[in-house]
Amino acid sequence: MGRPALLIIDMQNDFVLEGKPLRVAGAGKVIPKIRSVLAEFRRRLLTVFHIVRVHRPDGSDVEIIRQELFRKQPFAVAGSHGAAIIAELSPHEGEYILTKTRMSAFLGTELELMLRTLGITGLVVCGIQTPNCIRTTVFDSIAYNYPVMLVDDATGAASNEVHQSNIRDMQNIGVKIVRAAELSDVLDRWERFPD
Amino acid sequence: MGRPALLIIDMQNDFVLEGKPLRVAGAGKVIPKIRSVLAEFRRRLLTVFHIVRVHRPDGSDVEIIRQELFRKQPFAVAGSHGAAIIAELSPHEGEYILTKTRMSAFLGTELELMLRTLGITGLVVCGIQTPNCIRTTVFDSIAYNYPVMLVDDATGAASNEVHQSNIRDMQNIGVKIVRAAELSDVLDRWERFPD
Repeated sequence: MGRPALLIIDMQNDFVLEGKPLRVAGAGKVIPKIRSVLAEFRRRLLTVFHIVRVHRPDGSDVEIIRQELFRKQPFAVAGSHGAAIIAELSPHEGEYILTKTRMSAFLGTELELMLRTLGITGLVVCGIQTPNCIRTTVFDSIAYNYPVMLVDDATGAASNEVHQSNIRDMQNIGVKIVRAAELSDVLDRWERFPD
Repeated sequence: MGRPALLIIDMQNDFVLEGKPLRVAGAGKVIPKIRSVLAEFRRRLLTVFHIVRVHRPDGSDVEIIRQELFRKQPFAVAGSHGAAIIAELSPHEGEYILTKTRMSAFLGTELELMLRTLGITGLVVCGIQTPNCIRTTVFDSIAYNYPVMLVDDATGAASNEVHQSNIRDMQNIGVKIVRAAELSDVLDRWERFPD
């Protein structure tokens, strides 16, 4: 069925490192799984997007309902260490870094234009966190007609319960849920995706 | 804080009536609650949108992953009885009917342009079903900077468990969750919304 692309979402210091106020509890344990997914895409020379939330220092591009939070505790500020991708997942040359200001990677970004330009026909998603940036991006993928696969154990949330209930809802609308260890086989069978 | 609008989502015969293949199990029991929410908005002469999914008979505007389902069992086809709003919630003159082809009421529709034109500053959402059209619309409301309130008991899903886990996730991102019986008081205090 053509070309898949990988979207790694929000794996930034502010959301992953121990002690950061906005750290997602389940972020640390998914790093090795994301590394294995990323290695598989690199090995096959497939398209990789590192999707990151980045805000202006004055917060003018932050959601209205998060403005107060941002004023008290700025997060993902352009140029800061907190906004940078974690060292373990540093982008390689030729991989795309795409910034967003909302949960969905499609909203107010050049993602869809780039996917069309690159001839991408389906997406593989991982990162953090399952109910928010992951799920909105996955639902928008379906809406924009990109069949989408979520790598379950390479995706993290604040708790396992939150993660699992969101996996169930995504599976219910036709999202394919895979494990990182299955990905190589799944990519081999990509032409038959979605099953 | 200005003007709220009500969005009643997908309360159409194909998704509500007994025996319909795509009926949402929890749709029937929320009808009286939606009627009470709607009556409150009508009494106050506030803006009401009836949001409906409507598809062309050839299915060209259906999500790719639902094309096969649509071919086997067309749903919400323009002009059909199935696509019509249920009798109990028939729109009154002066209320808006807005059609969509995706889950979110914002995606590929004139909703945001209309909200701006009307000076709407916040949304009250109810209808079906919680994990899909309701949640995507609610998350997009937040992304587009409209504080949003969900009427819990006027919103239905396939099961209570699915409904509740989605309510939790929406509450976690700052969505205000209210009961239909509270709405009158909440609208009285609207100027202080969101709390």
